[in-house]
Amino acid sequence: MTAAMLHFEDFPTGETVTYGSYTLTREAILEFAGEYDPQPFHLDETAAETSLLGGLAASGWHACAIMMRLNCDGFLLDATSMGAPGIDEVKWLAPLRPGAVLSVRRTTLDSRASKSRPEMGLVKFLFELLADGEAVVMTQACSIMFGRRAA
Amino acid sequence: MTAAMLHFEDFPTGETVTYGSYTLTREAILEFAGEYDPQPFHLDETAAETSLLGGLAASGWHACAIMMRLNCDGFLLDATSMGAPGIDEVKWLAPLRPGAVLSVRRTTLDSRASKSRPEMGLVKFLFELLADGEAVVMTQACSIMFGRRAA
Repeated sequence: MTAAMLHFEDFPTGETVTYGSYTLTREAILEFAGEYDPQPFHLDETAAETSLLGGLAASGWHACAIMMRLNCDGFLLDATSMGAPGIDEVKWLAPLRPGAVLSVRRTTLDSRASKSRPEMGLVKFLFELLADGEAVVMTQACSIMFGRRAA
Repeated sequence: MTAAMLHFEDFPTGETVTYGSYTLTREAILEFAGEYDPQPFHLDETAAETSLLGGLAASGWHACAIMMRLNCDGFLLDATSMGAPGIDEVKWLAPLRPGAVLSVRRTTLDSRASKSRPEMGLVKFLFELLADGEAVVMTQACSIMFGRRAA
């Protein structure tokens, strides 16, 4: 952990930043769904048209995986991240269509030092997955553990 | 939607069932992490040993994706599932190691008919991901939409 890396102290509450660009292809939707979520509305265009999704759309877990990649490239690989104990909430708000260009808007909701582990702190984020720079297709709230500068 | 499929009415509150068998390989851990969660503790054994995970372990999102596959094969592909609006909570309780054999224990927590859409209802589940038939490595609470028999 070098000083240049992002630490617990570098995520002020209220800060909002946007990053990333990931073009979702039809092939990637079908590949992920075929391996992990083979429900007809993620695999078959005809079945998808008559489903609640109204057309082929990515698995919600695929959206989560892509958001994780955008978060890694956007800040986690340059941070003292120690992982996350879990996820507070995920909302899938709109179908994620082939061709969408995805980015992430991250807002810091809160942060607190760990009492039991003085070398780390938890930062609570709201992550919004944006399609084509505007539509929010997914939100996710979770806390991530980071190393502290003071430690 | 045929009568033989599982409908909203077929998930009584309090029911617990266990299903599935998925052997997690080191190669699968590295492949998923390389694509979606390239943090060192999911990709590199030496880095993982000095991390909180204490050794190479799968991405938490990989665990979610595998659980989704086990749920598809275990009941969703034989059900009138219409997808899910989101996830209430995910907890990553223990590192998911190479070689683990994964299964799912599903408990029905609650169910309610939709007021706005009489043809469907929501069933709230607790899903527990079990490693080697006993250790709970992840829990997940979420509601899934199903077609109703009465409709």
